[in-house]
Amino acid sequence: MREKGQEGRRRDMTALEQMGARVKKASEMMSHMGTAERNRGLAAAAAAILEGREEISAANEEDVKAALEKGMKPGLVDRLHLDESRITSMARGLMDVADLEDPIGEVLSMKPRPNGLLIGEKRVPLGVVGIIYEARPNVTADAFGLCFKTGNGVILKGGSDALCSNKAIVACIKKGLERENLPADGVWLIEDTGRGAAMELMKMNRYVDVLIPRGGAGLIRSVVENSTVPVIETGTGNCHIFVDESADFDMALRIIENAKTQRIGVCNACESLVVHRAVAETFLPRLRGVLSQVEIRGDEEARRVVPEFMPAAEEDWGAEYLDYILSVKIVGSLDEAISHINRYNTKHSEAIITSDYANAQRFLEEIDAAAVYVNASTRFTDGFEFGFGAEIGISTQKLHARGPMGLKALTTTKYVIYGSGQIRL
Amino acid sequence: MREKGQEGRRRDMTALEQMGARVKKASEMMSHMGTAERNRGLAAAAAAILEGREEISAANEEDVKAALEKGMKPGLVDRLHLDESRITSMARGLMDVADLEDPIGEVLSMKPRPNGLLIGEKRVPLGVVGIIYEARPNVTADAFGLCFKTGNGVILKGGSDALCSNKAIVACIKKGLERENLPADGVWLIEDTGRGAAMELMKMNRYVDVLIPRGGAGLIRSVVENSTVPVIETGTGNCHIFVDESADFDMALRIIENAKTQRIGVCNACESLVVHRAVAETFLPRLRGVLSQVEIRGDEEARRVVPEFMPAAEEDWGAEYLDYILSVKIVGSLDEAISHINRYNTKHSEAIITSDYANAQRFLEEIDAAAVYVNASTRFTDGFEFGFGAEIGISTQKLHARGPMGLKALTTTKYVIYGSGQIRL
Repeated sequence: MREKGQEGRRRDMTALEQMGARVKKASEMMSHMGTAERNRGLAAAAAAILEGREEISAANEEDVKAALEKGMKPGLVDRLHLDESRITSMARGLMDVADLEDPIGEVLSMKPRPNGLLIGEKRVPLGVVGIIYEARPNVTADAFGLCFKTGNGVILKGGSDALCSNKAIVACIKKGLERENLPADGVWLIEDTGRGAAMELMKMNRYVDVLIPRGGAGLIRSVVENSTVPVIETGTGNCHIFVDESADFDMALRIIENAKTQRIGVCNACESLVVHRAVAETFLPRLRGVLSQVEIRGDEEARRVVPEFMPAAEEDWGAEYLDYILSVKIVGSLDEAISHINRYNTKHSEAIITSDYANAQRFLEEIDAAAVYVNASTRFTDGFEFGFGAEIGISTQKLHARGPMGLKALTTTKYVIYGSGQIRL
Repeated sequence: MREKGQEGRRRDMTALEQMGARVKKASEMMSHMGTAERNRGLAAAAAAILEGREEISAANEEDVKAALEKGMKPGLVDRLHLDESRITSMARGLMDVADLEDPIGEVLSMKPRPNGLLIGEKRVPLGVVGIIYEARPNVTADAFGLCFKTGNGVILKGGSDALCSNKAIVACIKKGLERENLPADGVWLIEDTGRGAAMELMKMNRYVDVLIPRGGAGLIRSVVENSTVPVIETGTGNCHIFVDESADFDMALRIIENAKTQRIGVCNACESLVVHRAVAETFLPRLRGVLSQVEIRGDEEARRVVPEFMPAAEEDWGAEYLDYILSVKIVGSLDEAISHINRYNTKHSEAIITSDYANAQRFLEEIDAAAVYVNASTRFTDGFEFGFGAEIGISTQKLHARGPMGLKALTTTKYVIYGSGQIRL
């Protein structure tokens, strides 16, 4: 059998493939750069961003002006806008990443086999990481920082509304790397913001080792459906809190208020409450008082207790509102709560409020989600809150990385084997 | 924003979806079965296979007869055929898996955060694993065993030529599980062997957590290209051995003979030799003597030393022969060797034969492959040889698992968080 993969297909390379080959080549150099060299690159990029803040600001103004002209929503314009302090914190973010412990090169275990082979598993860069994201220019510097720290090349495909900003940021980063004689080809922005370029990127298995989409459900679905490059799905969160019959009501209310209202537009916000029947009558009226600004949609039983609740429809159980809305479902047992949550959740973050030891343990065991909490807010599902010092996204899939992804999610391993002439018998 | 994923799409479920839903449901039960229960299931399945060996044998005879009639190659018929001893070793394989250490439930690390949250990472089953494979009925029992051990449901899509055998084996396994009141729905064979069923399986993200294709390059490529379910690519091996200028020739010849000829049809066999120019003249004539039954295809320089070598063409450098053929490339330096190997290899297994410390370390560092060897045969890349006690395949991709995959590759983690009322500030 002849392997056709590598050299059998002879044709002219597209512009994107040429770019992919250059980033791949740079990533090979980066994969054996030391920690000090990579940190020097991050510092140089940070310095160049600070020096170039006027250019970045001017480019961003162009983007913002065009966005306003086309009637972009204020919330999105805000995420697009880079003021002085945001540019400074982009640079500071790179310095913070430089300060993190370097995961690359660690040998996770090394053991001799009976035949004397010494087999170790070494943490190494993935190679080239593709990031597809929306019009948030801060992601540009952020994603570069995490990838460069871990010795990975990065190909950035940002939203078209942020193109001028992204170009200016990447130009600064490249200038910083060049100044230090580090491979500036290790970061590349795709300037063609059309759908064709995105589709081509999703099929560039030869040059891209993993794709991470960051953005809304539509963007993520499109990448999952079209990509032949392996994808790490970062996802939506339909997060539940279960108020058990033994719950401390004060604690439950404090946690629910935090999880629902501290920040509504995020994936770890609580979208649905599951309440044990035994406490529905005493608990729900107090809930109403605490969440006065939230629209509560209850099932029939909840509405018998608090008639002001709006009626919940079937689609409410699966809804990620990202809004001041909360659904409430009454259940008769822990079993019923677990089965409801496992049916409707998006495998992100789920919490139980209880004082019962066995119920706490069962909830932790039987709920299928990236993060399962006892007596705490779902809002903690976050790389910084978990102590990783960084976050490239929150994985809601099960392969490679699950939950908040820090630097280690951007690494793989290889087996290194020290022999002394062994052959297989 | 409303999440439409779970309940928004209302239509009749296809037969395959109904099957997927049943396996998913069984996998939820299995995910909190204890080690003893899962091992009991493996023992019961093994016993039922032994009891049912006549039925399995009769079914297999049907498959073999049909295969012979359609003119299947002898090598493939041999892989299809199940004699008494192969059926016994299928059963013994399940018992061996039962004896392995259980990876499920271990908490990999658990640390308190400054706010008192105690965060641990617990190893849990993936959920439902889909295996797409060719006409090798032993894979049926094998894949079931590894998945059941790790608490995963498994959907099997075997080659049509082994359908009768696979049905008989799965019927035995289910009988064994039922006898022990364990979820027999946790294993399912897709009896529709058409391409349509395979395509549908590759899109069943709702019920299947990961797909593992096992087979030739065409099968694997088709799964990678068509699947929206995450795939673990098991792959082809164009494995190299580099004979450095300081190599011990006797050791090099022993290792090359082993890696090339001990078993030719396997992915960890050596397909290409890279030889340092400084030793080409003395080494290559001896190589010719040792590999007398192998066709050697050399570059021009190698053929100047040994004119009997056949000429190697460009496509030889990327070829996985799986045959008594070996290519030989002469290089002037370690750098050139590394760059040649990284360009043409399939990221599987690569070896250097050297007595130079620095060259050994550089080769381990700079070669991009799942397994990199110093002074040992590439044939060791194997779950059993690595001490995992099992192997579901050898991953040549970088996400989730790389190299030989044992039980741990069939697991994921979830964060379990013990709180005492913490909210995010």
